[in-house]
Amino acid sequence: MDNRPVGIFDSGVGGLTVVKEVMKQLNNESIIYFGDTARVPYGTKSKNTVTKFAIQIIRFLLQQDVKAIIIACNTVNSNCIEELRNVFPDVIIEGVVEPGVKMALSATKNGRIGVIGTEATIASNRYTTLLTENHKDYRVYNKACPLFVPLVEDGWQNKQVTIMVIEEYLKELKTKDIDTLILGCTHYPILHTALKQVVGDNIQLINPANEAAHSMGERLLEKNIAATHSLGHKFYVSDHPEKMKDMAKMFLGYTINEVVEIDIENY
Amino acid sequence: MDNRPVGIFDSGVGGLTVVKEVMKQLNNESIIYFGDTARVPYGTKSKNTVTKFAIQIIRFLLQQDVKAIIIACNTVNSNCIEELRNVFPDVIIEGVVEPGVKMALSATKNGRIGVIGTEATIASNRYTTLLTENHKDYRVYNKACPLFVPLVEDGWQNKQVTIMVIEEYLKELKTKDIDTLILGCTHYPILHTALKQVVGDNIQLINPANEAAHSMGERLLEKNIAATHSLGHKFYVSDHPEKMKDMAKMFLGYTINEVVEIDIENY
Repeated sequence: MDNRPVGIFDSGVGGLTVVKEVMKQLNNESIIYFGDTARVPYGTKSKNTVTKFAIQIIRFLLQQDVKAIIIACNTVNSNCIEELRNVFPDVIIEGVVEPGVKMALSATKNGRIGVIGTEATIASNRYTTLLTENHKDYRVYNKACPLFVPLVEDGWQNKQVTIMVIEEYLKELKTKDIDTLILGCTHYPILHTALKQVVGDNIQLINPANEAAHSMGERLLEKNIAATHSLGHKFYVSDHPEKMKDMAKMFLGYTINEVVEIDIENY
Repeated sequence: MDNRPVGIFDSGVGGLTVVKEVMKQLNNESIIYFGDTARVPYGTKSKNTVTKFAIQIIRFLLQQDVKAIIIACNTVNSNCIEELRNVFPDVIIEGVVEPGVKMALSATKNGRIGVIGTEATIASNRYTTLLTENHKDYRVYNKACPLFVPLVEDGWQNKQVTIMVIEEYLKELKTKDIDTLILGCTHYPILHTALKQVVGDNIQLINPANEAAHSMGERLLEKNIAATHSLGHKFYVSDHPEKMKDMAKMFLGYTINEVVEIDIENY
């Protein structure tokens, strides 16, 4: 057993949907969250830039004595998770893309899978590569949806115009006879109800955070480092701590009392 | 006369609407453009972060031997243009907010003015402060519209859903009897047609870039440093040069052949 915290990071506030799943499934664990709100979004940045940013953040989390890390940011997952595991070989690094792929492969019946995410996640083709690695006959249909993040952050998840934006983005995917749709961006679970309304009951929505939390729990047990009780959670950002507090209400369903701002470029 | 270039910078590609105006009005001038595409958007970042970024960019532009600078980014204008003029007292620094205010004040008949922009521009209250400085009885109504930038960058300016998003954002402003609406973000002129459709003919849309280019022209003449002929334009970004090329087609109406990527954090 090991009561040190689990680190979770994202380019911004979206990773709070992963925090929520970890809190639910692994409620003895303490969490240290970092959101890179000074440099968000990563989705439009290059691989080199994203890798440099992720290395700085992992250094920061290791200084906070985390025992394991979940990379909630799909853009980091898609661009450089293998490289990060090579740079930090002694740290358990769990992603969200691999768990999302695992869930989708066990969910699909017809082998036709959709993926939605930021521009960089889609452009990286990482989901497609992993989904078809052992299933050459599977078909993967990708669509970048850059308006979804600002829609969520504006709190528009229940507005009619959000349904129209979703319909616009998904109209081609809906013609592809997919039975499974991966929400390849941490913000998208907030749009679950609206997405479900557009895609209907015949398409399963996959939130990779479910499996990421489950998989982290298994790895902590395997290594005998699961916690016996939570010592509480800490939240850090590189900018705008007040905004993180506001967003936490929507993402976690409760209020965070303290968010600490740090200068991540120093790490 | 002085044929050195004019520097123009923005947090990203939006400042190309200012480039377009300068090209049109001051067609003897050479332009050096920098878009901080690695760190865009500034609109959600704090004053300290934005100021630090702007100082780095001005240092870069001065190394390119510019004779004057237009800060196209409304967020920089709203947060720290005075501070930047103090840090660089020997450089002509023109903004877009002050010219936008000047245009709006000469356009309004009823003294009721709307301002739309990013969250940071609106939160800074800079337009309101300047608009009411000598007109205490004027009424200014502000609205942050964070979806407009991704709508433009997705090329959705002619879609029906864009009209709905604009209606959602402007429905309250439309009840305020304004006769003038300042487009307080460099991306927004791309939405001119859609905005006009929503606000109707009784509200004048103000594009601050018009007056910014005009004002820069006057200052160059005053100081006797206007150019006699253009030596061409150069475009720099901190990330994703290819995306800048794509966007240039939409913003400038023609293709840029070369966009150079630099590491702005070194300046």
